[in-house]
Amino acid sequence: MEQKRLSDIGWGEFQKMGLTGKGEYLNHRQRPVHTLLAQQFDRPMLERLCDLATKIRTIARTRGGMQFLQTLLSEKRAMLYFAQPSTRTFLSFYTACQTLGVKPAEVRDTTTSSEVKGESPEDTVRTFSSFVDMIIMRHPVGGFAERIAWLLSHTDREVPVLNAGSGKDQHPTQALLDIYTLQQGFDGRGGIDGKTVLFVGDLARGRTVRSLAWLLTCYEGVRALFVAPEPLQIREDVLRQLDRAGMPYEIGTDFERFIPEADAIYMTRIQDEWDVSDESKTLNVEKYFFTRDHLPMLKRDAILMHPLPRRREIDAEVDADPRAYYWRQVRNGMWIRTALILLTFQREAEVDRYYEDLTRE
Amino acid sequence: MEQKRLSDIGWGEFQKMGLTGKGEYLNHRQRPVHTLLAQQFDRPMLERLCDLATKIRTIARTRGGMQFLQTLLSEKRAMLYFAQPSTRTFLSFYTACQTLGVKPAEVRDTTTSSEVKGESPEDTVRTFSSFVDMIIMRHPVGGFAERIAWLLSHTDREVPVLNAGSGKDQHPTQALLDIYTLQQGFDGRGGIDGKTVLFVGDLARGRTVRSLAWLLTCYEGVRALFVAPEPLQIREDVLRQLDRAGMPYEIGTDFERFIPEADAIYMTRIQDEWDVSDESKTLNVEKYFFTRDHLPMLKRDAILMHPLPRRREIDAEVDADPRAYYWRQVRNGMWIRTALILLTFQREAEVDRYYEDLTRE
Amino acid sequence: MEQKRLSDIGWGEFQKMGLTGKGEYLNHRQRPVHTLLAQQFDRPMLERLCDLATKIRTIARTRGGMQFLQTLLSEKRAMLYFAQPSTRTFLSFYTACQTLGVKPAEVRDTTTSSEVKGESPEDTVRTFSSFVDMIIMRHPVGGFAERIAWLLSHTDREVPVLNAGSGKDQHPTQALLDIYTLQQGFDGRGGIDGKTVLFVGDLARGRTVRSLAWLLTCYEGVRALFVAPEPLQIREDVLRQLDRAGMPYEIGTDFERFIPEADAIYMTRIQDEWDVSDESKTLNVEKYFFTRDHLPMLKRDAILMHPLPRRREIDAEVDADPRAYYWRQVRNGMWIRTALILLTFQREAEVDRYYEDLTRE
Repeated sequence: MEQKRLSDIGWGEFQKMGLTGKGEYLNHRQRPVHTLLAQQFDRPMLERLCDLATKIRTIARTRGGMQFLQTLLSEKRAMLYFAQPSTRTFLSFYTACQTLGVKPAEVRDTTTSSEVKGESPEDTVRTFSSFVDMIIMRHPVGGFAERIAWLLSHTDREVPVLNAGSGKDQHPTQALLDIYTLQQGFDGRGGIDGKTVLFVGDLARGRTVRSLAWLLTCYEGVRALFVAPEPLQIREDVLRQLDRAGMPYEIGTDFERFIPEADAIYMTRIQDEWDVSDESKTLNVEKYFFTRDHLPMLKRDAILMHPLPRRREIDAEVDADPRAYYWRQVRNGMWIRTALILLTFQREAEVDRYYEDLTRE
Repeated sequence: MEQKRLSDIGWGEFQKMGLTGKGEYLNHRQRPVHTLLAQQFDRPMLERLCDLATKIRTIARTRGGMQFLQTLLSEKRAMLYFAQPSTRTFLSFYTACQTLGVKPAEVRDTTTSSEVKGESPEDTVRTFSSFVDMIIMRHPVGGFAERIAWLLSHTDREVPVLNAGSGKDQHPTQALLDIYTLQQGFDGRGGIDGKTVLFVGDLARGRTVRSLAWLLTCYEGVRALFVAPEPLQIREDVLRQLDRAGMPYEIGTDFERFIPEADAIYMTRIQDEWDVSDESKTLNVEKYFFTRDHLPMLKRDAILMHPLPRRREIDAEVDADPRAYYWRQVRNGMWIRTALILLTFQREAEVDRYYEDLTRE
Repeated sequence: MEQKRLSDIGWGEFQKMGLTGKGEYLNHRQRPVHTLLAQQFDRPMLERLCDLATKIRTIARTRGGMQFLQTLLSEKRAMLYFAQPSTRTFLSFYTACQTLGVKPAEVRDTTTSSEVKGESPEDTVRTFSSFVDMIIMRHPVGGFAERIAWLLSHTDREVPVLNAGSGKDQHPTQALLDIYTLQQGFDGRGGIDGKTVLFVGDLARGRTVRSLAWLLTCYEGVRALFVAPEPLQIREDVLRQLDRAGMPYEIGTDFERFIPEADAIYMTRIQDEWDVSDESKTLNVEKYFFTRDHLPMLKRDAILMHPLPRRREIDAEVDADPRAYYWRQVRNGMWIRTALILLTFQREAEVDRYYEDLTRE
């Protein structure tokens, strides 16, 4: 199959494509060139990433291991262009850079850039990109990261763009860390294949759930359960995707009935910041909170996830239960992003070798 | 004596303890686990810190020495969580991290964090702590750093918390740098024991003076003099502490009478930002300013200190006098913080060895 | 000739001197101590800088080369004191620091410093300077960087000050990068000597043009053309300088007539932020825009420059032409600043040796 290249396609044509169509232009030899969409990853890529993240995490346990990791990309520089604030995503990527020796530079407040002097946003980002080898970008406008990646692919200095959240639509590394957490949680039990994942809360508006549901179709025999108040239930377009992929699912409103069936529960926050007229306030959302009382209903080896921040969806008293996986999920975000950056720069073989030596000893 | 651990005590009980009682829960084998209070340090710890700071400063004089220091904690990451701005304290800690190879990440504006979305402050800091090996924290709320240290001690990932100033009450590393400056200033003359320290200015509201006075009780035969306008005079509770420790002191309003007696003068700024109704404005504070005219009254080997920033308490013309120690004091802050971080991570032995080789040559 | 030192002169006397007079106090043995003025550089220094920048750029092409560069100043720390925002200049210097292993710390918002508590600006910067080995400073007040450099030269801890833009008057590293870009553009054709440089746009208010015109007088047989709307034409004082240096020039308003004569065209933005009463709005500035239609009029080996940001002075369609040099100009800024920092710390010999080994292979 001939490799598709972003530099070969016009912007108008690219924009009109579907997510999987776009995805084909973003990878090269099973590695991401730009990471813009959850949909650009297939199962082999996901497994490579998870495997790499675990190796990096293991190597990072010793001082010598950390020092080794810091040599891997020590000659690279990254710009973290966060036009929209998100301290946790920022820190997660920042840390991933530091772990690999990548020198990070932060651009937070874009009003201090030349945009104010009448420069085009494209010129601004292209100028900034001159100084770095990678752009990690969070932007309130959906599709902005795609636009920048496309633009840079048409210059003589294309640097990878990693989407750290754009508008309401995409936050691909969140989906990757969720997959990694599931894989880790089901380690020694056949992995993700054949498991039942229960999604709870605001399923209509969370980009997280949409992306993760899609990625689960890469696995065999996964079953999805969607529990939410009627107006926040999972959207038809996602269900159509699952249908096309042949993935079984069930929809409901009775949280407690579904709990015992789940191998993983994915709790979410009601995203009332997207409310048009306070509609969330009229819902009885407490029915969808996970409390201490639910712990006995939960399978002994199930895992409880949450993308955080939480409000009251999971009671703090639940944190001490070994099945509470959300704090580990945060750390996993750091490791999967580290793996992603390494894969993007095609330096993963050095980790493979180091890990092999380490485990042979 | 059995070692007390923060993880063994409930929050309510810990909160109710006095400063020395709390201190016992913050150290482990004569090293700080968390650095929250000036009162957690005893004389052996202070001497270990000062000794270490001097060794680090000596090693840092050469390019090779600096490169060695940067390997000591090169696998560590620190978050500088500054919910309250203070560029100088920030830079001092930031530099200390860089000197040891610790990778720093800054969180300045907490409104960009998820606190706005209804997350608890505890969840926010716990999330951020996931990415780092140490938290350096400045917060307007007294006791917040304590709360976070306690909270992390009850998770499976306790990272050290260093208090870089909380509310009106504690700024322990300022007290440590003051002790280090005194020790350095009295080097070759028996150290701090037996010296007379004159405190001048706003003694009621400066946390600096309160902490330093307390730490001086760790030494033998120190005498304190407190000179201030009546309403800003040192508080009763501090004097009771000195009484209990058997440390002699004198109180007065006649600055010039006390100058010739002092081995060290500790000048402070009138902290009118804590004024309730402009009460500082009605005071004749100029009586408590150190000017060129006072230089002849000062002992030949006395030292003149100021925590900075100053306004008019010390005339700029005094800066050139060799007894003006306040600029050196700033640098000392950097060195003592470097020593503190190293001690916290129990890596001081490597500095001892390097220093020994250095001085043997 | 006896070396002049900033520490030997009073502030009042220094302030009254002309630019070349000041320049003599800023260098030491053909290297900058402080970099404050374009006028402190002479031809040998410019050539040394350009040569060094090219060597660094070449070495930086490999992973091993980058790792070598990062050792050169790995024991140094820099403060980027940006009291006036400029993300691109900031990133350019920040990157230059990282390339050499210099640890950067950023001070952006000076209102978070102690200036608010009544401290003098001099004390503030002196305190901050305690933590670093170099200050890179951008400030809205013309002459502020000079003042700080002078002040530090009168303390026992003088650290280099690099002016990254002060007020309307000086931005010396912009002029250096322009010289480097010209030199690079004319490489293999005798360099800058004997070339014709056409300046277009807002020649009255751009500090860039003024500084560059001055530096061009260091070369032989250069001819300058100035094309601008009457009110924005180059100022008399610059022309007097060129007269004194014996550099020929021509002034006009007919852009297209001059294009074919130019070896380099230096386009500039109308700086309407300095307008007193919207005077720029009444001008027909479009006559001074470079469009696709001008490409055929341009010499085959001419180069087209712009300090960026641009608005409509150069059409984006022109970007793809090989003579469009402005994106390369951005990268050149990074390289020349790297060279400048290295020269300031007198570590350039290590680059010379590495480069020699590299090219001998």
